[in-house]
Amino acid sequence: MAQRNIRMVVEYDGSGFHGFQVQPRLRTVQGVLTEALQKLTREEVRVIGAGRTDAGVHALGQVVNFFTASTIPAERFAPALNGMLPPDLRVRKSEEAEPGFHARYSALGKTYCYLVYRCRQGGALMRNYALLYDGELDVSAMQEAANYALGRHSFKAFCASGSEVRSYVRNIKEFTVSEERRWLKITVTADGFLYHMVRNLAGTLLEVGKGQRRAEEMARLLQEGERSQAGATAPPQGLYLVKIEYPGAHSLDSWQLPVV
Amino acid sequence: MAQRNIRMVVEYDGSGFHGFQVQPRLRTVQGVLTEALQKLTREEVRVIGAGRTDAGVHALGQVVNFFTASTIPAERFAPALNGMLPPDLRVRKSEEAEPGFHARYSALGKTYCYLVYRCRQGGALMRNYALLYDGELDVSAMQEAANYALGRHSFKAFCASGSEVRSYVRNIKEFTVSEERRWLKITVTADGFLYHMVRNLAGTLLEVGKGQRRAEEMARLLQEGERSQAGATAPPQGLYLVKIEYPGAHSLDSWQLPVV
Repeated sequence: MAQRNIRMVVEYDGSGFHGFQVQPRLRTVQGVLTEALQKLTREEVRVIGAGRTDAGVHALGQVVNFFTASTIPAERFAPALNGMLPPDLRVRKSEEAEPGFHARYSALGKTYCYLVYRCRQGGALMRNYALLYDGELDVSAMQEAANYALGRHSFKAFCASGSEVRSYVRNIKEFTVSEERRWLKITVTADGFLYHMVRNLAGTLLEVGKGQRRAEEMARLLQEGERSQAGATAPPQGLYLVKIEYPGAHSLDSWQLPVV
Repeated sequence: MAQRNIRMVVEYDGSGFHGFQVQPRLRTVQGVLTEALQKLTREEVRVIGAGRTDAGVHALGQVVNFFTASTIPAERFAPALNGMLPPDLRVRKSEEAEPGFHARYSALGKTYCYLVYRCRQGGALMRNYALLYDGELDVSAMQEAANYALGRHSFKAFCASGSEVRSYVRNIKEFTVSEERRWLKITVTADGFLYHMVRNLAGTLLEVGKGQRRAEEMARLLQEGERSQAGATAPPQGLYLVKIEYPGAHSLDSWQLPVV
């Protein structure tokens, strides 16, 4: 039977998942999604994800694809799956993709946001959805540090040590730090990310914001590529996979963060 | 020993609590808070709350008070308790109150917000923090309906049937419906609320917004006082106790909703 390629945009609350990637005996996004799809199609299904988010990391616009011989109309996968999936995992959209589409390899860029919520002795409602921080943050110094990272660089200093990759070079196309009410939002778009790269960049920017580092250090960190010299890994609950970019006109909307 | 009266502003994520009020063998805000206070002061402590929120209802500015002979400085209760409390319950502030202060009886007014998040096939991240609704809502009709309820009325049609109260008359001082991005926010301030009153008002406004009722019906509902004629009770997860007002100048800030 002819295999169709189906692409879906997926949202999840990372709090209850051990990350995206399937792991034996652990609740993962890929695992739960695969199980629901296999129940629905009565086939063996392999779910391919655009980005492997860590435990606790959220997604508004994760993209996955899978091949199926099922005759279910492409757009019906979203509502059918949502009827079976737990409420912390939703399929926002499903559609037919070209046969060569691969959620990970076809991606031209990805956008992540990192949220900081500034509160004193509070944060019960936001504890799983932002880094809670009480104190001053110099936003313009953070933006200055971010500007050094724009463009093509080796991001070895921001890659989890022990990761095996062919190249540490990535191209950051956008890197902004913005403030709204009690929120601080770091938005970063690149052609790809190394393991822990966003959380390590966010952690370093936060140290700049607190005045523990100067913004100019960013240039040296990028040049020297020493993980031990860069900032601490920011905790997962502030991180959101917001959007994946693919070539050509396509109908995958970008999704706004609920909060800012 | 002289008993001091301590007032605290409390924030909680209602998702994990069976409401505010203590109940045997159930996790409640009052129960968890009382237990922590008793451990801290080594006294029998009675926690008085301004509003009894239902299971699933959140609070940013719940106010409680209690009497204690402890010598702990008033402002130290907040950090000391936060070191013992679970992360879904935080004390935002603690301070000395006048001896006659009573969190419930001294209150002049309370403000609640009800949040609706408009999304199609999504909402994994907001499922516990808003009513998810996919469809058109006529915000100006909702505001028109809300305007009928402003001022002193009997709110019998919006009180959970079976509630025993001396009077159904309450005074609504502010009642607004606003929109921002994907959010719809209903804000209502009154001198007091009947059981389920905000959720019943919100449910009725939503029916007006969907075009299932005309805004003018609000006048008739208020006049006739028939619970069965008013709208359905909106689900608890959209509701936030935001602020309690007390006489005189006091230092209890109001707390902004994290989202809008």
